[in-house]
Amino acid sequence: MLTTIISASTTTTTTYHSATIFFSSSSSSSSSSSTNTPTSSSTLVFPKTLTVTPKRTRLLRLHASSSSSSMSMIDKETPELQRPHTFLRQWNDDSDSNSSVRARFEKMIREAQDSVCSAIEAVDGGGKFQEDVWSRPGGGGGISRVLQDGAVWEKAGVNVSVVYGVMPPEAYRAASPVHAHHANSSVPVPFFATGISSVLHPKNPFAPTLHFNYRYFETETPKDSQGAPRQWWFGGGTDLTPAYIFEEDVKHFHLEFKLLDSFLDLLQLSLWKKVKELVATEVVVQKRACDKFDSSFYPRFKKWCDDYFYIKHRGERRGLGGIFFDDLNDYDQEMLLSFATECANSVVPAYIPIIEKRKDMPFTDQHKAWQQLRRGRYVEFNLVYDRGTTFGLKTGGRIESILVSLPLTARWEYNHQPEEGSEEWKLLDACINPKEWL
Amino acid sequence: MLTTIISASTTTTTTYHSATIFFSSSSSSSSSSSTNTPTSSSTLVFPKTLTVTPKRTRLLRLHASSSSSSMSMIDKETPELQRPHTFLRQWNDDSDSNSSVRARFEKMIREAQDSVCSAIEAVDGGGKFQEDVWSRPGGGGGISRVLQDGAVWEKAGVNVSVVYGVMPPEAYRAASPVHAHHANSSVPVPFFATGISSVLHPKNPFAPTLHFNYRYFETETPKDSQGAPRQWWFGGGTDLTPAYIFEEDVKHFHLEFKLLDSFLDLLQLSLWKKVKELVATEVVVQKRACDKFDSSFYPRFKKWCDDYFYIKHRGERRGLGGIFFDDLNDYDQEMLLSFATECANSVVPAYIPIIEKRKDMPFTDQHKAWQQLRRGRYVEFNLVYDRGTTFGLKTGGRIESILVSLPLTARWEYNHQPEEGSEEWKLLDACINPKEWL
Repeated sequence: MLTTIISASTTTTTTYHSATIFFSSSSSSSSSSSTNTPTSSSTLVFPKTLTVTPKRTRLLRLHASSSSSSMSMIDKETPELQRPHTFLRQWNDDSDSNSSVRARFEKMIREAQDSVCSAIEAVDGGGKFQEDVWSRPGGGGGISRVLQDGAVWEKAGVNVSVVYGVMPPEAYRAASPVHAHHANSSVPVPFFATGISSVLHPKNPFAPTLHFNYRYFETETPKDSQGAPRQWWFGGGTDLTPAYIFEEDVKHFHLEFKLLDSFLDLLQLSLWKKVKELVATEVVVQKRACDKFDSSFYPRFKKWCDDYFYIKHRGERRGLGGIFFDDLNDYDQEMLLSFATECANSVVPAYIPIIEKRKDMPFTDQHKAWQQLRRGRYVEFNLVYDRGTTFGLKTGGRIESILVSLPLTARWEYNHQPEEGSEEWKLLDACINPKEWL
Repeated sequence: MLTTIISASTTTTTTYHSATIFFSSSSSSSSSSSTNTPTSSSTLVFPKTLTVTPKRTRLLRLHASSSSSSMSMIDKETPELQRPHTFLRQWNDDSDSNSSVRARFEKMIREAQDSVCSAIEAVDGGGKFQEDVWSRPGGGGGISRVLQDGAVWEKAGVNVSVVYGVMPPEAYRAASPVHAHHANSSVPVPFFATGISSVLHPKNPFAPTLHFNYRYFETETPKDSQGAPRQWWFGGGTDLTPAYIFEEDVKHFHLEFKLLDSFLDLLQLSLWKKVKELVATEVVVQKRACDKFDSSFYPRFKKWCDDYFYIKHRGERRGLGGIFFDDLNDYDQEMLLSFATECANSVVPAYIPIIEKRKDMPFTDQHKAWQQLRRGRYVEFNLVYDRGTTFGLKTGGRIESILVSLPLTARWEYNHQPEEGSEEWKLLDACINPKEWL
């Protein structure tokens, strides 16, 4: 009976946390409890689709579906042979028009996917990205690209996705307290989420792992509800996870994102202009935005990153951080779109020069073993704490896209402790005690 | 603000789930939320202790504690130079006397630890177990033994622990509905938990991984409360996780545990005797026990095992199962102590003969890669679903003991699918569609 209590709590937790939808490159579909006995309790509902997986898998899974009710969640994406021009619903209203924020965000992340993959392939020189395109009949889909066992990277995944879903009304209220009283309490709220997510794990232990993720989320007005306004949020970040510290690399990386501050200063003016145009109920939100809005974005998002990528049970961060922000909606929407675009476009200049310098450095088995231990920490963070991954696992998203973030190989030694003052010790110290790099 | 909602839910979930305490070989101490921003909200309270960790680590962690309030949770065990005769509080009442169930259970698991470690070392021929003994000033402690990078096993951990803690009154009520009305609603309930937990990962891909865990849990009567009866539960199981199926091995393994049925049949008589002695309120529980009690233990616990070790996001079991039971308290207490003892003593005869046959079989790089992929699944199950591991991570138990269950090395390939009909495919099929082996 205890299990039932837990199960209920867990499900509630998940469904209330609508913002986590941002994180998963392919999160979607019906949510179910995380108990061990397979049961299903849908909270986010997507249309079901016929299975079009390769023959080998289909045989195994169809067999399985007769013995476990939850198996039907697995095969809901439809593989596509070609990339569509857009994953947006073309029959929809203005929300999905070419000039909408969602359309421009999708265009931006698809261009970012292309440019990052091109840069990776050019530097790798050997590996090529394998592409999987998938869709859902009700709208939405994604492009997963993975380069595995290349010359420079052991695993590099760059995914984009577009998700249409429905969240329970209580989740909507929790996510948007200002407008909660407008929402019809009994009507599920349709939502839209799109994002790019990438993890790049190089082979050389002196070359750092990079993760970045930028995402945009909207709720739609329920069709049978009056006056529930549309909500939107931005989230994202880019962070560096080396096994060894080269201070010049970390400074270069952080500087790339600090420079965005001045970009934001320019945009501040346009925000003030917007504020003046706002009507009554909006002012509360926008006033708060103005109070917060200053050129301290970098220190704020840097600290947010240090706090987010925290492996609590280890008392360590996963890596050396970067920037991170989430649930941002109290700034001008156009400004945040520009900011996310600028961040995504900063990935290549921030990361590739570091890889160029480190990819061919000679290393020993001990260096490699330490890298593998840190990869173990990466796995721990992603499976236990990362909101996108844990949400994706619970809701039955495309599992291969979600777990492409895991490294090709990882290692766990019992009670490993680096020698004080060693290079390994310095990295661990920086993960335990975050540093100001600039 | 969403994070706060989640944090509160998660904490409540943990504290209500008293039964999970069983699972962790070293779970204990103050629970705190699993949010990313380090915060602390104690629910299970242990006395704090001074840090006596090795110098290298202490320097790193003490530095860290100044920047994060949650760090103080990390160093709460005191390393000991010698194994004590018992981890029970010797100054306590009859609960901890030599004839108590808790004392006999501790004796049993410590003997099982010795015999399993001896058997492993004898077969390994090269590796020796490294032992860490630790205690807590308020009572309790544990012995962690790890053999790493041996001749036969890449990692073998065998841990015992004894934990004294305090659970909130609502957790006690949730755990013992029949007696809920007796409990003083405002008084935290002290509990006692002890168990043995082991994971054995061999090197040879044809030699299976074994996990077993047997545990006993009690609540104590709060000192300032009248009439709250003591509750107790047993839990445990033994399961096999091969990368390749040798049907004779799996049958041999399952048979060892099926044979326990006849043992239980003999004990059934003593249960009936007990039932006749029961008073009014006990009858509800014991009647249910009698209704359930029959010689179908094996099929019941076999299915429980298949259900428990389920990697929901993969639609696969971790391995080929064995037996599993939890929260058992509706049988005769002596019978369950004997049953757990018999199960623990069955580990060596069930497992060692399989290892003897498989440890020197020749294998290819492909066999090894498949084993590593299955090790990846093992990591996924343990970090995402295993109740003992997840509880231990949340409550700040001894992290090296909790995560000793992870393999030395693991691997994740994007979208790996074994060829239909191959040996790898057969294993995967059996993990997706559990089989009756006997």
